[in-house]
Parts: sequence; structure tokens; C-alpha cells
Amino acid sequence: MKTSPFQSEDHFLEAISARFPNAHPHMTVGRGDDCAVLACPETMVMTCDMFVENVHFRRAYFSPQDAGHKALAVNLSDIAAMGAKPVGFCLGLAGPPDTPAACWEGVLDGMAELANRTGIPLVGGDLNACSSMVISITVWGEPGESGRLFQRRMCHPGDVLFVVGELGLAAVGLSRLESEGPACVKNWPEAVAAHLRPEAKLAQGLELSGFRGVRGLMDVSDGLARDLPRFLPEGLGAELSIPEDMLHAEVIRHAHATGRDPAELAVIGGEDYALLGACHRTLFLELYGRMPDMWPIGQAVQGQGITINGRPLLSRGFDHFG
Amino acid sequence: MKTSPFQSEDHFLEAISARFPNAHPHMTVGRGDDCAVLACPETMVMTCDMFVENVHFRRAYFSPQDAGHKALAVNLSDIAAMGAKPVGFCLGLAGPPDTPAACWEGVLDGMAELANRTGIPLVGGDLNACSSMVISITVWGEPGESGRLFQRRMCHPGDVLFVVGELGLAAVGLSRLESEGPACVKNWPEAVAAHLRPEAKLAQGLELSGFRGVRGLMDVSDGLARDLPRFLPEGLGAELSIPEDMLHAEVIRHAHATGRDPAELAVIGGEDYALLGACHRTLFLELYGRMPDMWPIGQAVQGQGITINGRPLLSRGFDHFG
Repeated sequence: MKTSPFQSEDHFLEAISARFPNAHPHMTVGRGDDCAVLACPETMVMTCDMFVENVHFRRAYFSPQDAGHKALAVNLSDIAAMGAKPVGFCLGLAGPPDTPAACWEGVLDGMAELANRTGIPLVGGDLNACSSMVISITVWGEPGESGRLFQRRMCHPGDVLFVVGELGLAAVGLSRLESEGPACVKNWPEAVAAHLRPEAKLAQGLELSGFRGVRGLMDVSDGLARDLPRFLPEGLGAELSIPEDMLHAEVIRHAHATGRDPAELAVIGGEDYALLGACHRTLFLELYGRMPDMWPIGQAVQGQGITINGRPLLSRGFDHFG
Repeated sequence: MKTSPFQSEDHFLEAISARFPNAHPHMTVGRGDDCAVLACPETMVMTCDMFVENVHFRRAYFSPQDAGHKALAVNLSDIAAMGAKPVGFCLGLAGPPDTPAACWEGVLDGMAELANRTGIPLVGGDLNACSSMVISITVWGEPGESGRLFQRRMCHPGDVLFVVGELGLAAVGLSRLESEGPACVKNWPEAVAAHLRPEAKLAQGLELSGFRGVRGLMDVSDGLARDLPRFLPEGLGAELSIPEDMLHAEVIRHAHATGRDPAELAVIGGEDYALLGACHRTLFLELYGRMPDMWPIGQAVQGQGITINGRPLLSRGFDHFG
């Protein structure tokens, strides 16, 4: 009953071996046995996310390389949000049996470029036939030198809420790609890149873990409007202040072109893979000078509500559920 | 672009929480943040396998509970083959948006029964829409008290080759289920159970890890005929001796009913999830008395070939590639 999208399992294993080194200090016995053997730190963080054709990506405008890159990048973004350093990952791949080998090789190329640049070994891989392309990744990491890991729901009233990265830019890219196809890259280069090739904020997450006054960090993947309520502790709300000039020029241009409020567009967003954090005001001023893509979005306050530029935030974020 | 097969992500998370405890000594921060936080042993083994509808299972005769059970069991079998003890796992689930919630709940029920009986926590879970049902599992474990882990290709000429578990029984179950549907369970109860509800040989793998003279262990998942060449070191072959009376009565009955040689049927097999091992003759006699489902299948010899009951083994195992 089994079929493989590659010509043979050996072909798949060769394609893996050609791209992902099978020796690494973390991996004392590499791929090729029933399990790999890992040398592990005492504390690890772990997460898993699937990346599914026509749910998370469309082949109409994602190259195989883009899909392979993004499938890993969105998982690494969860490691970044813990303030951790990635250590290794496993990959389950599935797709139609008539998928050309070059397409699978492209997926592996995009993923290997990011994995090798990040310095993490591929510990296990599995390839199967399936009616849609599915890229299933489990990734794990370890705390940085400080030993600290971030959690949500830890901020205090009066804390500055900040973001590392752009809000709304990937959503503009998605919107333009869906309506205009890949040619829109000419007019929306950074929005398209933000959607197709997000980069996890690993260095920034690790740097922030060195500061005791940073009270919580999370990955903004469903849009700030949906993710902020998951970040705030019970009983706290937020006053957001997002002036237009803090947003990316392509976000502003898209908002104006479509008659929308740029700040609202930014907070609805979706797939930003930015980091949302909180810290004491004094620390914020220190950090703000150090981290070029960090910016303040408001403050945590007593109470339940969230306001944006003085108005109640009614928008929902990116809706997973149709 | 995202849709979830459950009504909402909250519904999925509730279904997970109701079945999989979110507190465990291995998991110092449970599910619900960007990552879980794990307290890890120094050495871990890790593997990942997908379980895909119409490739690994058919809904016509797999209940959702069977699918959930088997998806985890086949991964645990890789842990057993290392002589290790399972520690935790992550789950990626995908399926058609019109899948009834009761079906997903059944998958989770079958998986939770096995996970909870095995004592391993679910560390991360992700649910997505996909045209087929896909269950993607990453599982990890730690060495037992001896600290030993098994690898393949370690046996010596003259070593006894042994199997723990049945050969060919699951293949008989598959064959009968495909031709007769679920009603065949009446005449082929153990073959059907072997196909739908395999159990990883975890206790046996761990027990074997306590014996220095056991030289290698592996999971027989593609049939002995395909897996044995992966087990033997370069330059070694095997002389197999598989008398009919070592095989399960349902294997013998199916072979006779279909005019096939029972031993050949057993070694072609497929999805046995038995363990294949090797050890010195003296140790074998000691072990044979201890482990009721262990039996000798022959010996490793100098040279390339594999013979079965004196004839060259021509059969291939279960073919992944159609």
C-alpha cells in the first residue's frame, strides 16, 4: 500500500545526505539506524508545526525552496520566542507520488540552506506519499548563556510592550500574491519576501534572554490582535500606540491603496514571525538603542481591554478557522 | 488560507488536554507556550515517522482509535529497537476539514491510551487541514539502566539471529482486511490485531540492552527479507532456518489457503514491528528461556548471501515504492 514520491527510498536518503551533514557534536550517532543518538543539554525547549500545501502555502507562488525555507523558519521562530538557541530538528515530508524529484530537492535545498546557516543537524527524516504536500517539523533548542527562557503572561502593568520585526508586512505580501501572483514582487519586494522567506529572530531572542527585566516574549504568528491577548496575564489589558511612521512603507502604501487604516492592517497582520515582548520602561530605553528592529507598540495596563491609538481594538487577527 | 478540521483551535486544545496530562517530570513547562520546556537525560535517541491515510492505513477497516494507536506504536518500535525507554513525543495531525470531531477524538483516544500506558507525555501538538489524514510523530527516549544502545551491522559470524515477535502475521492481517474487509476478524483475529494494533516490544528491547553479548537490534518493519540485509555488517550473510512450527497458526493457515510457502510468507511479511537481533550462541540459550516471544531464525555467516531453509532467498520484502 506504500508508495514514495521519490523513485526509491535510497534516492530520498541520498538527497538528504547530500544536503544535511550527518555528523554534528549534538548527534553522536547520525541518521541511518532506527533512531539517531543525541548528546543533550539538561534543559531543552521543543515545538512542532506542520506546513501544508494550500493551507500555509500555494505552489502558484512559493518555489519549492521557499516552502522548504519557510517550513523550518516558522518552527525556529518558536525557539526564538523562548529566547533559546536551536539545537536540532526532525523532518516528515509527504506529497503526491507524481511530484518531480527536482521539486523535492528544491524543498530540501531551501531547508538545508537555513538549517546549515543556523548550524542545526537534521536528526531524522521520513518521506511518504500523500495527496497534498505536507512538511512536518519538530525542532528543539537550549537556553542561551543566561539560562533564562521566556514565557507568556508575565508582564506587569506599566511595562512597555515592544515588537522585534515588522507587523503587517507578510500579510500585505500574502494579499498581493493572492490577487496578483508572483509578478507583484516588482512593486512589493519586501512584503513578498516577508511572506515567502521569513527569518526567525533567533539572535534577538537570545540577546533579550540576557536581560532579567524582559518579562516575556512570544512569536507573533496569528497577527498581533489575536496574539496579544495570549501574551497578557489575566487582568491586564494594553494601550497600543502605533503611529504610521513606525510601519513599513509597503504596509502604508498597501493600506492607502485599499482604503484601510495602516495601524489596523498591521495589528491584524498574520504570519509576521515577529517577536512580541514586554519590559520595564528603563530597560526598554537601553534595549531600544541596541536592537535596530525593535520598536515600542504601547504599554500593559490594568483592566481587560486593548486600545489602539485611543480606539478600542475590534479587529481579529488572522483566522485559522476559515 | 488556514482552516482547521476542528471547529476551533480551542476545541482541539481542549481535546488534547482532556486526554494527555500536561504535567510530567520530563516536561517542566507543559504545552501552551511557544515551546514546551523539557528536563533531558544526557543521551537521547530520536526518530520520526508519518502515518498517512491510504498509504499506511485505510479508514475502511482502521477505526480512528486504531489509527491513533498504530501511528504512535510504530514510532515506539524504533525506540524499542535501540534498547531504549521512551521519554516523550510530539504530534502533528492533519486531515480534511469535514472530518467529524468524533473521528479526531477517536484518533486522540487511541493514541492517548498507548501514551499514558507507556508513561510518556505529549510535548507539542499541531492540527491542520489537509486533503488526506496525516499523523506525524516525533518520539524520543533514553538508555535503560545499562546505558547501552543498540545499532545495526554489529553481529559476528556464527552469531544466532533471533526475532522477538511474530513474522508475517501482520501481513496476513493486511491481506485479509484488503480482500475481505473488517469481517475477516472472525477468522483471523490475531492477524488483524497484528495489523491494526501492533505493540512495540519496549520491555523486550530494554531487557536485551542489559546483555553485553547482544550484538545489535533493529525494528522489522519492511519485512525480514528487506530488513535483514540492513542488519548484517558488510561481508556477512545469513543462513535462516524457519521451520513451519515456529510460525503463528494464522500465518500457516493463510499460506496453505493461498498455496504459498509459510516461511517465505513470514520473511516477506511487512509491518511486523518485531525486533531482529543477534547474539552469541551461549547467551542465546540463556535469553531463550527468559523471553517467551523470542525465537531463533538462523545464524550470521561469512559471505554475502542469505538462504532460507537451504534455498537462496529471492523474495523482496514489503515494497515502499509501489
